[in-house]
Amino acid sequence: MSKADRWLLPDGVEELLPEQASQVEILRRKLLDLFSSWGYELVIPPLIEFTDSLLVGLGSDVDIQTFKVVDQMSGRTMGIRADITAQTARIDAHSLKREGPVRLCYAGSVLHTRPKSLMASRTPIQVGAELYGDAGLDSDIEVICLMLETLHCSGVKNITLDLGHVGIYRALIKEAGLSEEAQQKLFDALQRKSTVDIEEAITSGINDPEMADMMRTLSQLNGDNSVLARAKTALAKAPGEVIAAIEVLEKVAEKIFLRMPSVRIYFDLSELRGYHYHTGLVFSALAPGHGQAVANGGRYDHIGEVFGRARPATGFNTDLKALLSYLEKGTAKDASTILAPTSDDLNDAEELALWQLVQRLREEGEQVIYGLSGQACTLEYSRNLVLSDGQWTVKNR
Amino acid sequence: MSKADRWLLPDGVEELLPEQASQVEILRRKLLDLFSSWGYELVIPPLIEFTDSLLVGLGSDVDIQTFKVVDQMSGRTMGIRADITAQTARIDAHSLKREGPVRLCYAGSVLHTRPKSLMASRTPIQVGAELYGDAGLDSDIEVICLMLETLHCSGVKNITLDLGHVGIYRALIKEAGLSEEAQQKLFDALQRKSTVDIEEAITSGINDPEMADMMRTLSQLNGDNSVLARAKTALAKAPGEVIAAIEVLEKVAEKIFLRMPSVRIYFDLSELRGYHYHTGLVFSALAPGHGQAVANGGRYDHIGEVFGRARPATGFNTDLKALLSYLEKGTAKDASTILAPTSDDLNDAEELALWQLVQRLREEGEQVIYGLSGQACTLEYSRNLVLSDGQWTVKNR
Repeated sequence: MSKADRWLLPDGVEELLPEQASQVEILRRKLLDLFSSWGYELVIPPLIEFTDSLLVGLGSDVDIQTFKVVDQMSGRTMGIRADITAQTARIDAHSLKREGPVRLCYAGSVLHTRPKSLMASRTPIQVGAELYGDAGLDSDIEVICLMLETLHCSGVKNITLDLGHVGIYRALIKEAGLSEEAQQKLFDALQRKSTVDIEEAITSGINDPEMADMMRTLSQLNGDNSVLARAKTALAKAPGEVIAAIEVLEKVAEKIFLRMPSVRIYFDLSELRGYHYHTGLVFSALAPGHGQAVANGGRYDHIGEVFGRARPATGFNTDLKALLSYLEKGTAKDASTILAPTSDDLNDAEELALWQLVQRLREEGEQVIYGLSGQACTLEYSRNLVLSDGQWTVKNR
Repeated sequence: MSKADRWLLPDGVEELLPEQASQVEILRRKLLDLFSSWGYELVIPPLIEFTDSLLVGLGSDVDIQTFKVVDQMSGRTMGIRADITAQTARIDAHSLKREGPVRLCYAGSVLHTRPKSLMASRTPIQVGAELYGDAGLDSDIEVICLMLETLHCSGVKNITLDLGHVGIYRALIKEAGLSEEAQQKLFDALQRKSTVDIEEAITSGINDPEMADMMRTLSQLNGDNSVLARAKTALAKAPGEVIAAIEVLEKVAEKIFLRMPSVRIYFDLSELRGYHYHTGLVFSALAPGHGQAVANGGRYDHIGEVFGRARPATGFNTDLKALLSYLEKGTAKDASTILAPTSDDLNDAEELALWQLVQRLREEGEQVIYGLSGQACTLEYSRNLVLSDGQWTVKNR
């Protein structure tokens, strides 16, 4: 390997240099403070766990996304987390074991074996919030509002909230009595939103013509809130859970609209993202100019079961690195740095007095940088420390 | 695997629950703000890199500590970082490519295949600062002072600064003309500070009796600053670099003492920690009750060479998790949470007014938590929001 190639980072793996890093740090603090003001407590789960606890209940997508290594101390397989949600669920179910609602939040690096989409990072900084122990709509609404507020704080504008409910498809598919294979075919076709394949999967897999019609309609039930009225009519003969789920969507949308009237709400009743672990309402936020959702979440009520406590759960997360592109540019850097001279020509008393002043200025929030002997100063600074009449003072440059 | 075992974390891998997590977060911000006030710019290197760039110049210790995985996209080997120092050196040498001194800092998770010591974490949160582009003593002094200030900010008391210089041993060993094997034997014996093995290695490996005597003395040159005077006499006939290195230690100790007279300085002239990549002054900080150094660093001038630019470098780092134990306990949690009622019995106007007040309070820095329908409130709160005469107000409980 030549010297010139050494610095190459793997595809989808990026470093953040000072300007971007400080933007990310500012945003990170802002969001964690936001979560705290909503009552969400910070947890810091480890970067690595046994796959036995890390991958439970998350479906095969996360499994494939997770790098595995062998623990030299136990011989067991560990995974480097590709997602923090399951870790938080474990903390709620096992480590905290509290009664009643528990609100948790986190911010940390995760690793993906492959990028989730063409432009996605393989080393996102995942930030998110999860609400455990409450199955009611209040919780779904709270988490959705917090997701929207998170994006608002990050400078994301013209947000579209995408709402779905996996219970609708789940109830229909159960009623339709499809074979495992036919189910998979239909599921794939719906995921890809391929009209031809959906039709083919329905025709070949569902015998009952009424059922086939409902499934056909479902695939087209997306758009503004006229969709819900259409759905109620078209799916009137579906199992009770279907209508109940539509009414959940109705109520939630109403409350979100009351609180955040500027957010556009888009319904997608055949939305199947995270179908394998979500159990109810699913939601994501889209912003102009980005094909992928900028944040997403949903209800996942049974994930804690394997840890010995099934707790209702809903939450959302986003990627700090992806949010970077929405931050306002050109907030002019405050070049108010103070330069302290090198100690080359100072006696001990002068040097000590300088050091004490420098320390005091730093404590007061100033940035003070010492010059280094024999180095030309390449630093941008607006003030420096000058000795006159035995006193150190800050002078404008 | 039984349900009860699922939650077990691997040995040396720990999670931080709310109380500890918020302490770590507060300390993290405090230290990054401290680094910034000293002029150190934050960088965020990725969690993973090709081993070709991640492991250069760090010696075999770091290699063994690094988890390796295969990049599915390129087939090349990647390492999950066990140390952030080399990444920062790459950023300085290649990504920034600035002239003159560059000050960088970082805070991030690293992974170790095995704990560095019995009680150490395998998932430390490494924080540190590095100064590139200056070979002068000013830089060593600055970095040592920043390390001490970091520990001071973290509540570590009665710090002992351990100072050494790998140039002393390096010059002596070169002069002594030991075989590769004899060198390794002596190095191991010195590392373990085993008097018997040191004597055996010297007797069998060094023919010149004067040289053997100097090496014997070196292994005992540790203690307070009387050590330096002793060293100058005992090593008077050693190569010039040895005396130069002793004088470096003298000057640095003098400046540190001037600035921070309460810090105890301990010299250890046969200190060989990080010998394979350090090139000059090495230092660590010890605190009562902890066998291991709580922070350490040193000069490593050639690490950037493989990235195409050899830049002088010195820096230090510590582990946020290890610092946790020094933080003052019992800073009573401010239970001033405000509880907002559920919207169950509210009309739209009341609910909207409540939401707007809640949002305003949160923006003002209050923590406001909504009650959830049908849930007994298990929350600790001191105030709640009450509707009287059509107006929402904050009332003490």
